[in-house]
Amino acid sequence: MPSVNPSFPAGRGGGPPAIAVITGLDVRDIRFPTSRELDGSDAMNPMPDYSAAYLTLQTSAGHRGYSLVFTIGRGNDVQAAAIKALEPLVTGVPLADVLRDLGGFSRHLVNDSPTRWLGPEKGVAHMAVGAVVNAAWDLRARLAGKPLWKLLADLTPEELVRLVDFRYLEDALTQAEALELLHAARTGRAEREARLLATGYPAYTSTPGWLGYDDEKLLRLTRRAVRDGFTLVKLKVGADQADDDRRLALVREAVGPALRIAIDANQAWSVDEAIARISALRRHDLYWIEEPTAPDDVLGHAAIRRAIEPIRVATGEHAHNRVMFKQLLQARAVDVVQIDACRVAGINENLAILLLAAKFGVPVCPHAGGVGLCEMVQHLAMFDYLALSGTQEDRFIEFVDHLHGHFEVPAVVRGGRYLAPTEPGAGARMRGTSVEEYAFPGGTAWVSGSSPARQATPWRAA
Amino acid sequence: MPSVNPSFPAGRGGGPPAIAVITGLDVRDIRFPTSRELDGSDAMNPMPDYSAAYLTLQTSAGHRGYSLVFTIGRGNDVQAAAIKALEPLVTGVPLADVLRDLGGFSRHLVNDSPTRWLGPEKGVAHMAVGAVVNAAWDLRARLAGKPLWKLLADLTPEELVRLVDFRYLEDALTQAEALELLHAARTGRAEREARLLATGYPAYTSTPGWLGYDDEKLLRLTRRAVRDGFTLVKLKVGADQADDDRRLALVREAVGPALRIAIDANQAWSVDEAIARISALRRHDLYWIEEPTAPDDVLGHAAIRRAIEPIRVATGEHAHNRVMFKQLLQARAVDVVQIDACRVAGINENLAILLLAAKFGVPVCPHAGGVGLCEMVQHLAMFDYLALSGTQEDRFIEFVDHLHGHFEVPAVVRGGRYLAPTEPGAGARMRGTSVEEYAFPGGTAWVSGSSPARQATPWRAA
Repeated sequence: MPSVNPSFPAGRGGGPPAIAVITGLDVRDIRFPTSRELDGSDAMNPMPDYSAAYLTLQTSAGHRGYSLVFTIGRGNDVQAAAIKALEPLVTGVPLADVLRDLGGFSRHLVNDSPTRWLGPEKGVAHMAVGAVVNAAWDLRARLAGKPLWKLLADLTPEELVRLVDFRYLEDALTQAEALELLHAARTGRAEREARLLATGYPAYTSTPGWLGYDDEKLLRLTRRAVRDGFTLVKLKVGADQADDDRRLALVREAVGPALRIAIDANQAWSVDEAIARISALRRHDLYWIEEPTAPDDVLGHAAIRRAIEPIRVATGEHAHNRVMFKQLLQARAVDVVQIDACRVAGINENLAILLLAAKFGVPVCPHAGGVGLCEMVQHLAMFDYLALSGTQEDRFIEFVDHLHGHFEVPAVVRGGRYLAPTEPGAGARMRGTSVEEYAFPGGTAWVSGSSPARQATPWRAA
Repeated sequence: MPSVNPSFPAGRGGGPPAIAVITGLDVRDIRFPTSRELDGSDAMNPMPDYSAAYLTLQTSAGHRGYSLVFTIGRGNDVQAAAIKALEPLVTGVPLADVLRDLGGFSRHLVNDSPTRWLGPEKGVAHMAVGAVVNAAWDLRARLAGKPLWKLLADLTPEELVRLVDFRYLEDALTQAEALELLHAARTGRAEREARLLATGYPAYTSTPGWLGYDDEKLLRLTRRAVRDGFTLVKLKVGADQADDDRRLALVREAVGPALRIAIDANQAWSVDEAIARISALRRHDLYWIEEPTAPDDVLGHAAIRRAIEPIRVATGEHAHNRVMFKQLLQARAVDVVQIDACRVAGINENLAILLLAAKFGVPVCPHAGGVGLCEMVQHLAMFDYLALSGTQEDRFIEFVDHLHGHFEVPAVVRGGRYLAPTEPGAGARMRGTSVEEYAFPGGTAWVSGSSPARQATPWRAA
């Protein structure tokens, strides 16, 4: 934590001119060789090396704000380059101005015309904006001495709506409606905060169900998950149908009828194929099907949902901006909104998505796992509970039990629940030793070893 | 043109093992200082420097295939890096294999798991796939001694459908339906080819209507467009409503009631705002409104279309993949499908989009302008005419009259019609002198001068 006073009058506004200015974006390419163990393997991503384009936002007064974009290996350097490309947009800007108007700051980055063209508002360029916005939030939370969830929940409804860009949303959600939702949620907020600090927030686990795990490992990890207190587990599906059926039968038998089981196809199917494949698995009493088809296919998700109810449809980790979430909700295509900490333009756009979900009465169950996603996204779910949804019913934050030790403030799950972090910040700061060890390609983890997925597979004719 | 025989038996298949292999992807950052004159200025992009991430695919036998991704300035280096990141996926691959199975080659690149994560199938990473696929097509066309439109139109329906990835499309278009469309379009193909070679393909012009041009320049260029034989002109709108109204009145008065006038808001509006703004311009007898709102907003476009008919709704230049086009058509959200040569994963995905448009009976009017977009996309429209739509009715390729001289085979428009190129290739090859002059930042154009848009504008508090 920097000791310099940033002349940032948190929540006050005005005051003397700031002295600290943003001086640069330090971006590192961090990769973990997870493909060695097939952790994270699914129908579309058979061999990921979980990675992070890791950003440190720096100021002239020595402040640091941290964030990252999660990727799965090759191409992490492209993501890093996209973040670095935003440096001229923020260099020299007074820190106090940024922290006082994170809405305006975020809009400036999202709407920067040449970099917006590279999306628009999607893909590498959009995630880069998210990284810079999230680093500014991290810094603001550190200076305020609060965890992000608390910082956000302490803002007034009026301050919160100023953070949101309502362009493209107004046919589904106006600023006035958002204000109304936030004001209505103030009832019982203090009790909820006490409860959150005492008992945390429900988690579900995806640790057991990676596609590359054999049946023995699947069952061993599932039984452990039940012992650990989880009430919802998730399995990857979507490769071989007979394998999906067998694995689900084994897991259902092991956990009994009470435990919720969700499945995740990671976009493997066309619409009609999804309906057939999911219908054939009905007997296992499934809680949700996640990413049954292309993440862009709003109408496809709606058709699948109509065909397979009461099985819920979940999606969102690859929904690239607020306009996609708006449509998923308008078309009644989703039962479970899965925000991601890194896919959209940061906390501001995720706030818009939380507001949309609240307007449509659909629960938010964040996507996590990866690198740092649990650490980051838990703040948004906890804010949602305190200041917007007001409930934990049918809500769970995803949890995958690996790579947490690399973070300054690791996510902590006990008895199947996330404990609310109390340390200042937004969660993405990594340990310095981890940054040095897993820096690619020069870190010791890569100099002394490699991973099966490090090299690309050139195309071969069939 | 390389003189080495690539051992590529065009259209034959089989044959002896190939000797030529792909050796690398040479990528250059090319930028034109167009912001000096406000060419290309619109409601969302006030000051573009038209740019290209320019790719030369190289083989061990000295072959070269050319393509590019069009961007508007800063960030062109990120696009270039994304293309370069695909090099390990293609290096060492026998050229003959690639050219014999461009469908399999394209699918391998699109579905490469780590780079797909960066989209998925959208943004910089997806456009990079398009660049590599298009360069391979350019090389194939050069070796076949044909312009791309002719090469494509000479393929059999069976060969064409093998190029398309029908995953995610099958609820709207199956391979069998695609085959049927292509077979049906064979009637009259020879006559159409003769007509195309004799009289070309209709163009429309956007040259007069950039937002940064004053009334005098707007009118002067509009009158010239009419004299030049254009029957459809397009104006940028979406900033000030009174300006839009005045400019349209001036243009309508200058050209009379017969000329078609389209307008383009470049995503400036929310849905309800779009309906109000367009409705207020009805008196000018508008042919289409282009990009009235977010390009991702399928349901929004459908709502706008219902509210403003009979004015047509046009979109597509920023629709990032075939799934978006599928939905735009399924939701009856568009009257005009605007494919772009560089936004999607290359000619293969554009073929899927042409097939979708044919299935739904919606005309394709390609987006062009930019750098090299006219040169590239004309081939797809001409193929569509010969082998799929079978008509030029209500079809126009966009034309903007600048930067053509930088290309080996510049697009040629005479009497308001594109002349069919007869030189081999897919259109993107630039002149070597232009590449050297406009290379950024070392080319002479940048060493000896700059542009207003070269430097980013750091954010300033309101």
